[in-house]
Amino acid sequence: MSWRHALLIVPAASDDARTDFGSTFAEHDPGAPALLLGELSAQRGDGVFETLGALDGTPHQVEAHLERLARSAALMDLPVPHLGQWRQAIARAAASCPPGEATIKLVLSRGLDDGRAPTAWISVGQAPDFTAARTDGIRLVTLDRGVDRDAATRAPWLMLGAKTLSYAVNMAALREARRRGADDALFVSSDGFVLEAPTATALLRIDGVYVTPPASSGILHGTTQLSAFAWLEAQGMPVRYRDVRVGELGRVDAMWLLSSVRLAAPVRAVDARPVVGDAALTAALNAALLARTS
Amino acid sequence: MSWRHALLIVPAASDDARTDFGSTFAEHDPGAPALLLGELSAQRGDGVFETLGALDGTPHQVEAHLERLARSAALMDLPVPHLGQWRQAIARAAASCPPGEATIKLVLSRGLDDGRAPTAWISVGQAPDFTAARTDGIRLVTLDRGVDRDAATRAPWLMLGAKTLSYAVNMAALREARRRGADDALFVSSDGFVLEAPTATALLRIDGVYVTPPASSGILHGTTQLSAFAWLEAQGMPVRYRDVRVGELGRVDAMWLLSSVRLAAPVRAVDARPVVGDAALTAALNAALLARTS
Repeated sequence: MSWRHALLIVPAASDDARTDFGSTFAEHDPGAPALLLGELSAQRGDGVFETLGALDGTPHQVEAHLERLARSAALMDLPVPHLGQWRQAIARAAASCPPGEATIKLVLSRGLDDGRAPTAWISVGQAPDFTAARTDGIRLVTLDRGVDRDAATRAPWLMLGAKTLSYAVNMAALREARRRGADDALFVSSDGFVLEAPTATALLRIDGVYVTPPASSGILHGTTQLSAFAWLEAQGMPVRYRDVRVGELGRVDAMWLLSSVRLAAPVRAVDARPVVGDAALTAALNAALLARTS
Repeated sequence: MSWRHALLIVPAASDDARTDFGSTFAEHDPGAPALLLGELSAQRGDGVFETLGALDGTPHQVEAHLERLARSAALMDLPVPHLGQWRQAIARAAASCPPGEATIKLVLSRGLDDGRAPTAWISVGQAPDFTAARTDGIRLVTLDRGVDRDAATRAPWLMLGAKTLSYAVNMAALREARRRGADDALFVSSDGFVLEAPTATALLRIDGVYVTPPASSGILHGTTQLSAFAWLEAQGMPVRYRDVRVGELGRVDAMWLLSSVRLAAPVRAVDARPVVGDAALTAALNAALLARTS
């Protein structure tokens, strides 16, 4: 990702009465140093983030991303993000998006060790070309996430439902998948349940029902997944959140990984076992996701 | 931690023939921005680090820390660190240490998304005053690490033995411990074994033997723990790496958390159950750790 534009944000505490945002943003050249070495984002992955997709300057799912940013911040004991300020910053960032598909990344870091204030910024870049992933599809390997399905409830300090900057394991899982000749990974729990992909939500069609594992199993609430469920329901398709056992992957006749910028990537194979797929539905779903106006 | 001095390093590939380091360091004011927003350390906690203690400009355990830096980098598929360069950079950093106890932090980040080169730096600061922790001791609470003892072997992509920048869970565990009125946490595995503390290694005295859980259980190789075992052996004390069941904590008559800057912090209580302790041994051990000349 080559970042073309950035905004530094002076984060305000949550205070909806505050409406003068004029002085709280600074345009920043992404090629110029911006962060101190003592930044806790860089020293400890100590912060949260969101990545939004945009088409021709229209960002997708702003409210769902901001809700998740606030939920992640709460799980990490970060100051409550001022959503009005973020909304305005996203609008400014969106105005600088290149034509076509773009990525808008929001970062909220704990800041410096002195605890005075968080650090926050937004970066904008051209999205990679995901045509091949959306049409030809992707091959997955299942990888053990090490934790069981109940760990998120039992041990909230693991922050399994937060989108934190501590993303090294997610990146290592992608490298492991590529080492095994696949395109992406599908995390499964140590007690045999399907969880999520390192950077995407799983959507599976089993016996004609569109299924995603529930957030209670320690996975992220997917923003693109929310849009996909809404669209599928509008088409009259049955959707359901439920636990999916790894053994059920053999019964899946179509499957997708859903994420904000790649959107719906159809799964061609899981652990080398082919998945039939549904090219017409994939194309219609991606068209609908790209056409979102909010 | 307030950083007083910093060095930026232009990382060289591993090449022991390269001896001209003159142009590869840059002194840097820690109060001036140094990192781009696209830094993968800041965006994804994607890198490794080490924290060394130093007394009056003499850094402790340089070789053990560099070995662990290299091991962590290998587990993360980072370029092999050029240890000669790091050694020289540590010597330069040590020369700028304040008198008394200091902290020297090494960071090796994956760099930018373009994959051209890692980013590396060293920061130097005055160490906090840990007198109270070393003499009065600390209270621990056990916290479930979510994973079982075999996860590190079964799922190397979890990088449980690497000291990565993705430290958000470690920080959350410390906050949870403080919320429960304790000073620090002791991670235990989901199958009931003692692991390590979020930023320290556990040393337990059970039936007169000084015990640390083995690195194979997915914990970090402790550098201060290596020094402690060597010192204990020199005093004629029996030391042993072995698995410790959580149930054995009730039989512990002395216990310490070992780390590079706080050194040996005696444990006063685990989950509110008092630990007798050994003040004389604690004092002698900390004196020996401070007196290390390499």
